Amino acid sequence: MGLTAASAFDQATAVRRAADGSYDVRPDERFATGGSPSGGIPPAVNGGVLIATMLRAVLDSSVHPYPVATSANFLRVPRIAPARVEVSWLKQGKTAAVARASLIQDDVLLIDSTITTGFLPNGSAPDSAATPDAHALSWTAEPPELPPLDECIQLRPGTGISAQVDLRLDPATAGWLKKKAGGAPEMRGYFRLRDDRDPDAYLLAFALDGLPPVVFGLGAIGWAPTVELTWHMRAVPAAGLLRVAARCRHVSGGWFDEEAEVWDSAGQLVAQSRQLARVGRVGR
Amino acid sequence: MGLTAASAFDQATAVRRAADGSYDVRPDERFATGGSPSGGIPPAVNGGVLIATMLRAVLDSSVHPYPVATSANFLRVPRIAPARVEVSWLKQGKTAAVARASLIQDDVLLIDSTITTGFLPNGSAPDSAATPDAHALSWTAEPPELPPLDECIQLRPGTGISAQVDLRLDPATAGWLKKKAGGAPEMRGYFRLRDDRDPDAYLLAFALDGLPPVVFGLGAIGWAPTVELTWHMRAVPAAGLLRVAARCRHVSGGWFDEEAEVWDSAGQLVAQSRQLARVGRVGR
Repeated sequence: MGLTAASAFDQATAVRRAADGSYDVRPDERFATGGSPSGGIPPAVNGGVLIATMLRAVLDSSVHPYPVATSANFLRVPRIAPARVEVSWLKQGKTAAVARASLIQDDVLLIDSTITTGFLPNGSAPDSAATPDAHALSWTAEPPELPPLDECIQLRPGTGISAQVDLRLDPATAGWLKKKAGGAPEMRGYFRLRDDRDPDAYLLAFALDGLPPVVFGLGAIGWAPTVELTWHMRAVPAAGLLRVAARCRHVSGGWFDEEAEVWDSAGQLVAQSRQLARVGRVGR
Repeated sequence: MGLTAASAFDQATAVRRAADGSYDVRPDERFATGGSPSGGIPPAVNGGVLIATMLRAVLDSSVHPYPVATSANFLRVPRIAPARVEVSWLKQGKTAAVARASLIQDDVLLIDSTITTGFLPNGSAPDSAATPDAHALSWTAEPPELPPLDECIQLRPGTGISAQVDLRLDPATAGWLKKKAGGAPEMRGYFRLRDDRDPDAYLLAFALDGLPPVVFGLGAIGWAPTVELTWHMRAVPAAGLLRVAARCRHVSGGWFDEEAEVWDSAGQLVAQSRQLARVGRVGR
């Protein structure tokens, strides 16, 4: 890290090149949720933070600057111990390149991901392959509605993620904090790191998975393991607070979906995700 | 196929086991869009149909009955010629198993996909690993609003996909047919095969990608190649017509997202998808 004090998030997602396409990493307990001591479940590092780590390894050898599409399958929960990320390129195109990245611990595959890198309209490099026509078309849906920051509920800094993230929840989605779940599987809030590091692609990956699970709104409080998460980066974020809004469309058979959007301080839709996850134990 | 006359869709997505984990397939021009003869672009088989083909190969050796999560990266466009699907299993779990499936032609990787198989609440096999708590939780969002079938606009059967699919578009999303695009990137309609084959996991994969691209609603008529598509199967569909509703959140820099839901005749949300695609040439 040299003489610069990196943020805890940058430390937790750091990669060190060990060989061509192979990077040493270490899941960081500062970004883990507590698991269930009574159930013998160890702390699990946030899925978005693990994706950010894998993105760093991919971007290290990418010809394009941004991870426009990332899909990740969470096969097994990493331990808080050394691991590695293996990167192999499946396609090198003018507009998009595609890599496979694997998070491996003790020679066992834990997370399998496929990552498309490319250009973004407000990014640092132009897409030389795009037609002018395609560039001319621009359209954005309405942003989510959030109350002003000072009307939101600040989560107390505890252990794990809550010590790292300054999260202010929309009161309409925070009833579960007082055991009065609102009855709708949704979650909205303002998101930033406590050390106020500016957003980038890596922090977006975390923000998309950094709110409490939407099923908390149905009273299903507990660890909700992600099975599959796909996210798309749509613009380079401006400095400042992020707004995150997550909704759900269907819960049944122990499965639920969570769709999150991240909007930046300049009013841009910068990232969107959907994950399929498992409902944890209910009512704990 | 024996003595049973399979539907064109079943023929087009058929797989023949050639070796352990290797299946012979053939992209079928009956499910291709025309491409651009003037631009020298050959017909491209619908991405959902290609995914359905890969799902057949994966399900052939899956311990679980349904593809609950599928993410696919479209690297290169398959030709109308023999190809193969290679399947390898990354995880075999009690609740979920995960496979990688690759569509390959002339030893070149064209589509890379990761597929999670598991159980569904109304499916043919129970999830023995699920807790009763998790099964108890059930919630569904509001379905999309569609006009009655007889008020929708039936697309004329032409060549390619339109000869196979009986698609009835919501007039509110069909203005582009008369060169009066509605100005919103959305598409809704009723979907069934012309030979009226009942829906299953394979047909859902097609239905999710079977409507005209949402950017047609912005007047961007043209081939819109999918870069990445992820979909989740949420319930086993009832027999009958499918309702498909697709929306978009953001278009810029030549990229757009398309989120589709499929609801069945029994009013169940049976599938949901999001894809990242490229805007085709505009105004053609």
